[in-house]
Amino acid sequence: MPTEHVARRGRLAAILRERGLAAAVVTDLVNVRYLTGFTGSNGAVRVSEDGSAVLATDGRYRDQAAEEAPDVEVVVDRDLLGALSKETGGAQRVGVETHALTVDDYDEARERFGEVELVSLGRAVEQLRVVKDEEELDALRRACDISVQALDEVLAGPLLGRTEREIARDLEWTMYAKGAEAIGFETIVASGPNTAIPHHDPTNRPVGRDELLKIDFGARVDGYHADCTRTVVVGRADAWQREIYEAVRVAQQAGVDACREGAPVADVDALVRQVLADAGWLEAFTTGLGHGVGLRIHEDPFLSAKAPARLERRTALTMEPGIYVAGRGGVRIEDTLVVTDGAPELLTVATKDLLELA
Amino acid sequence: MPTEHVARRGRLAAILRERGLAAAVVTDLVNVRYLTGFTGSNGAVRVSEDGSAVLATDGRYRDQAAEEAPDVEVVVDRDLLGALSKETGGAQRVGVETHALTVDDYDEARERFGEVELVSLGRAVEQLRVVKDEEELDALRRACDISVQALDEVLAGPLLGRTEREIARDLEWTMYAKGAEAIGFETIVASGPNTAIPHHDPTNRPVGRDELLKIDFGARVDGYHADCTRTVVVGRADAWQREIYEAVRVAQQAGVDACREGAPVADVDALVRQVLADAGWLEAFTTGLGHGVGLRIHEDPFLSAKAPARLERRTALTMEPGIYVAGRGGVRIEDTLVVTDGAPELLTVATKDLLELA
Repeated sequence: MPTEHVARRGRLAAILRERGLAAAVVTDLVNVRYLTGFTGSNGAVRVSEDGSAVLATDGRYRDQAAEEAPDVEVVVDRDLLGALSKETGGAQRVGVETHALTVDDYDEARERFGEVELVSLGRAVEQLRVVKDEEELDALRRACDISVQALDEVLAGPLLGRTEREIARDLEWTMYAKGAEAIGFETIVASGPNTAIPHHDPTNRPVGRDELLKIDFGARVDGYHADCTRTVVVGRADAWQREIYEAVRVAQQAGVDACREGAPVADVDALVRQVLADAGWLEAFTTGLGHGVGLRIHEDPFLSAKAPARLERRTALTMEPGIYVAGRGGVRIEDTLVVTDGAPELLTVATKDLLELA
Repeated sequence: MPTEHVARRGRLAAILRERGLAAAVVTDLVNVRYLTGFTGSNGAVRVSEDGSAVLATDGRYRDQAAEEAPDVEVVVDRDLLGALSKETGGAQRVGVETHALTVDDYDEARERFGEVELVSLGRAVEQLRVVKDEEELDALRRACDISVQALDEVLAGPLLGRTEREIARDLEWTMYAKGAEAIGFETIVASGPNTAIPHHDPTNRPVGRDELLKIDFGARVDGYHADCTRTVVVGRADAWQREIYEAVRVAQQAGVDACREGAPVADVDALVRQVLADAGWLEAFTTGLGHGVGLRIHEDPFLSAKAPARLERRTALTMEPGIYVAGRGGVRIEDTLVVTDGAPELLTVATKDLLELA
């Protein structure tokens, strides 16, 4: 399988040259995976300004590193930073991930690197990860396909009288059966008044008749996360349930439609809030609007009023407005989508009409 | 339910007084949970030398913090470190977790704390966590009970012809059904030659006749992790399988028996290695011997030849020697146990005789 890792390291190398850095020592394991393909639990990679790379790991991962990262030099050494400090001459500047490196590890690095000046690389690799390449989009598509297929099966029912936990486990089991390598995050299944809690751990509460049922879930495939929420009614929806559902549906669709290359993130956020405000429900929207999604379930960019960025093409995002009324109930509708120069590519293709199910 | 959090903070306060620190600002979320009971994903706690505590978190967790940590003052503020820096006078020394705090967060803390001198608290809270209190042992016992009961059901079969993944998902499902709040870590199910890989991700390989089947798994209950491995033969064991099984069984039992209050950790490690060496299999033992287990699946103390410590009473540990022969197969037997002044309390009570199953 051709991999994009060389190109990713090339983009990082260009940043290093821009900033006058001889190399970056990347220690955040998700970033290490992004740059090399290595998925072990202990490793660090040095990427030099010419794009060459050395991956350091310990003996447990010797074979795995060679297999997963065939195009980089692998050094096996328990002292990762020590290994990566070698071959770095003096009077150089090397970037390190000060947002991920602990104080103790940083002090150790300074000792290992001696005369080399360590400077903050910032979230350079996280910023590269905002724009997905084809290999990443392919994994995201597969993760989302598995997720919505599993949801379809679970929503086929029965739902009435089953507990939140049973529904959550059933959904997870179905995602595994369809090829998920893992469950992307702790599945939220909330029924009745519990739907008012944005992040609710499934309980042994059975789903009652004519209640809202909110399911926030996603599969992981090749390290990439799907993130999807649907809210349905088990039985018949009453007028209030219909009202908040429709308010969220319209706001969510407006948000999806606004996700276009070049759109200021803050404008997308403002638009969705305006739609909710027009419907009289803005105060009941108490969470963030959405977030980037990829090797982490929550990653850059985060959608908010203060976000300075514009949306870039091939950015994978969630769009997840909601209404939460304590003690009564709530609705959230969430898609994972990919920004294009036209309408976004929806990865979680499942109806957003209000379903009344058994 | 009475909780031990006050006593835990009291033990930390005693350390602070010993070291001349006015307070500790604890930011590692597992340590925050240990000291307060708070399980949210964003929080930090300041414990003062008099044992008083202030927990800072953001608005999402206002109710949850009040409920989970009723005996500490809760401050809601997005700027956790800013909130915890207030009321701290100048000319004081405050401990921070430099092994857990990132360089960027530390720089921010230094700014927030102004004239207060920040010094490394080291792994003080992790060291407190080595010795479990009754509340912790109770959670560990329940996690281990659920785990071995689930294993029993899955080993009842059928096993032959099922895939590693099917067995893993079945075991996980069963742990949930028995009351696990989560699966403690990625379940390992390895069959045939895959048993030679110490940490093997379950695949779609069906278990063949007369093959080794290795299962490393555990439930999580109230935040506490069970960790257990059993290896069986599906069909009839041949002489080689019996030989390596017996070598591991004897070494593991020797290790368990050696875990006694006051025993030097390095001696336990040396003893097990000697037993494996006497059987001619030491070189095939390529992993660590065991580790502490509690709120984290891997925590202090780690069993190794270099560990300086002696075992303390009420320490929860795994004992998990193994033999791994690449391309052929392997055996691991692992228990979670609690150190006492006599024979250890075994928490994963399941036979270690070689089972030949269908």
